[in-house]
Amino acid sequence: MSTEVSTTGMSTSDSRERSVLDRIDRARRAPARVRAERVTLAHGSGGKATHTLIEAIFLDAFRNPLLEPLGDAAELVLDGARLALTTDSFVVSPLFFPGGNIGDLAVNGTVNDLAVSGAIPMYLTAGFILEEGFPVADLKQVVASMTAAARAAGVEVVTGDTKVVQRGKADGCYINTAGVGVLKRPGGLGVAGVRPGDAVLVSGPIGEHGITIMLARGELDIDADLVSDTAPVHGLVASLLAAAPGTRMLRDATRGGVATILNEIATGGQVSVVVDEDAVPVRAEVRGACELLGIDPLYVACEGRFVAVVDGAEADAALAAMRGHPLGEQAAVIGRVRQDPPGMVLVTTSFGGTRVVDLLVGDPLPRIC
Amino acid sequence: MSTEVSTTGMSTSDSRERSVLDRIDRARRAPARVRAERVTLAHGSGGKATHTLIEAIFLDAFRNPLLEPLGDAAELVLDGARLALTTDSFVVSPLFFPGGNIGDLAVNGTVNDLAVSGAIPMYLTAGFILEEGFPVADLKQVVASMTAAARAAGVEVVTGDTKVVQRGKADGCYINTAGVGVLKRPGGLGVAGVRPGDAVLVSGPIGEHGITIMLARGELDIDADLVSDTAPVHGLVASLLAAAPGTRMLRDATRGGVATILNEIATGGQVSVVVDEDAVPVRAEVRGACELLGIDPLYVACEGRFVAVVDGAEADAALAAMRGHPLGEQAAVIGRVRQDPPGMVLVTTSFGGTRVVDLLVGDPLPRIC
Repeated sequence: MSTEVSTTGMSTSDSRERSVLDRIDRARRAPARVRAERVTLAHGSGGKATHTLIEAIFLDAFRNPLLEPLGDAAELVLDGARLALTTDSFVVSPLFFPGGNIGDLAVNGTVNDLAVSGAIPMYLTAGFILEEGFPVADLKQVVASMTAAARAAGVEVVTGDTKVVQRGKADGCYINTAGVGVLKRPGGLGVAGVRPGDAVLVSGPIGEHGITIMLARGELDIDADLVSDTAPVHGLVASLLAAAPGTRMLRDATRGGVATILNEIATGGQVSVVVDEDAVPVRAEVRGACELLGIDPLYVACEGRFVAVVDGAEADAALAAMRGHPLGEQAAVIGRVRQDPPGMVLVTTSFGGTRVVDLLVGDPLPRIC
Repeated sequence: MSTEVSTTGMSTSDSRERSVLDRIDRARRAPARVRAERVTLAHGSGGKATHTLIEAIFLDAFRNPLLEPLGDAAELVLDGARLALTTDSFVVSPLFFPGGNIGDLAVNGTVNDLAVSGAIPMYLTAGFILEEGFPVADLKQVVASMTAAARAAGVEVVTGDTKVVQRGKADGCYINTAGVGVLKRPGGLGVAGVRPGDAVLVSGPIGEHGITIMLARGELDIDADLVSDTAPVHGLVASLLAAAPGTRMLRDATRGGVATILNEIATGGQVSVVVDEDAVPVRAEVRGACELLGIDPLYVACEGRFVAVVDGAEADAALAAMRGHPLGEQAAVIGRVRQDPPGMVLVTTSFGGTRVVDLLVGDPLPRIC
């Protein structure tokens, strides 16, 4: 779904290209309005339709200064304490997949939202919506995975809720986790801090979670030796922040994948992000499945990987710190932040071309988290 | 569903009665084990099946000192701040009903869990699970109600999440809210503080929410002038705590109604609770619908009422404070805490009889919140 802008190198001086970029930019700046009369799967994709829904309905209604940064977690000061608060619902299908299940996904997802906000994850809530008829043995397995994941992340599930709905009103088990963490860093890790000259890194090979879920559904006749990348990244984040105190921004690359995060950086920071396609770590199995599905791996969700933007001068130190951690062995510098064209993500290919990687409207892989 | 113990007054000296009580007590003390192989609607009722599920599966797995009190919210100390953290998922059907909708219910429910924990409600998260095809206009209305409810309760929705599932995998819209509040009171408001001689109050007429939902489903051919009692109780709680600093315990009477809370007091405090049936405020419309449905109003959910246990010497002050607040005009002292028989809730009727009001196994009114 990327818009091809057939050009060479990074030049955007050609007037035809400029007009394409301008059109994209104009469309983006139009006030968000939900044209659809009914909610579609695209509204849950994490892409353009989700952004529109959030901006036109939720942001507009709940408008307050804490919500507006729209990061992975809200920053609060409560009774003198600096805290991060976040929530995520999990509706992954299937519930069990190679490398994990909805339980550890629900813990890791919220732990990671706190971690990439610069917070030390501390306590989680767990809300279950169960479908009548859901096997109790499956519930036990999900809960056991949550316990193990919580222990691995050093957090505790301290309060919860269980609702049961009739058969056909859910899909086995949905889980919401909310999490609270302590913010010790003086500054935030939002897109506002991003500057031209910064380096863009990913913490490991991308797209493994999304493709694993897709294959687990059995709709494709592909047999790949792939497991979800679901993992808590708080330890890796701590290593990175210690080595690269000039880290500007962190964001975990879940729904919408790395491409969505890069677009949020470009739009939010009014900068451009230029990515070297060859530098992006993608496992051969993921690349192969993506080719068969006609999907760019940059759009495929991870559940244990994040995008980091660091001061250009600290890129080597950041990379070394990440590679020294078991979860970051295949971390890579994938691009740079530039001044122009603002709001754009450009990917340079090994053939010398450049393409614009925009937000997707919908999602080729629904319900991966 | 109450067990009739045909006796007079409060005497339990008769050996046949004692043996009934002993049998109930023994059954209760047996270790929790989920016998069912599949989740049933009863597991979401808030009654006995829910308790068993929570104790056998969740408590056992997540076991930690913060979770174990199983109150309405967990008490945390984070970065020096004393906080309360809670979560609730809302799956009410229908989504819109006289007096409210799932949106204000989701805000008030979490605000109330914080309030009855003695916390000042501060910030909420909102997680939406939407069914493909859900009307965007309905979503806007739900979100507008959440905004209004948040404003009324003095809280802000600071972070959220939206997932969309395919048609037939949800029921329009489910909402999870988690909430965090600040604890200023020195002590907790859990059942552990309850003592024989304490007075038991309810903050207003009971069962209006549950019966309103039941009637809104249109399954009964009853036309009653009834609206849900959904409301934020933080202001009423503040008035009560100021007037009766010896307040032992507060709990909002949602799923399972007042009877379930009274049972939690009796079991958790190892005391008996003796309720004067005539003193319990129940609107005529609720009483009438309950008679037709064969339900005891004590088991019907409220969404803006709570049970308070206060030092017997402060009962009058507590009652006056509650009645002086618009939400508490019909508050009432409904009973007393006694020493014996421990773990039992007894209701004395106007005919001079006494019956044991036990936890229900299931719920006659599923999905009321």
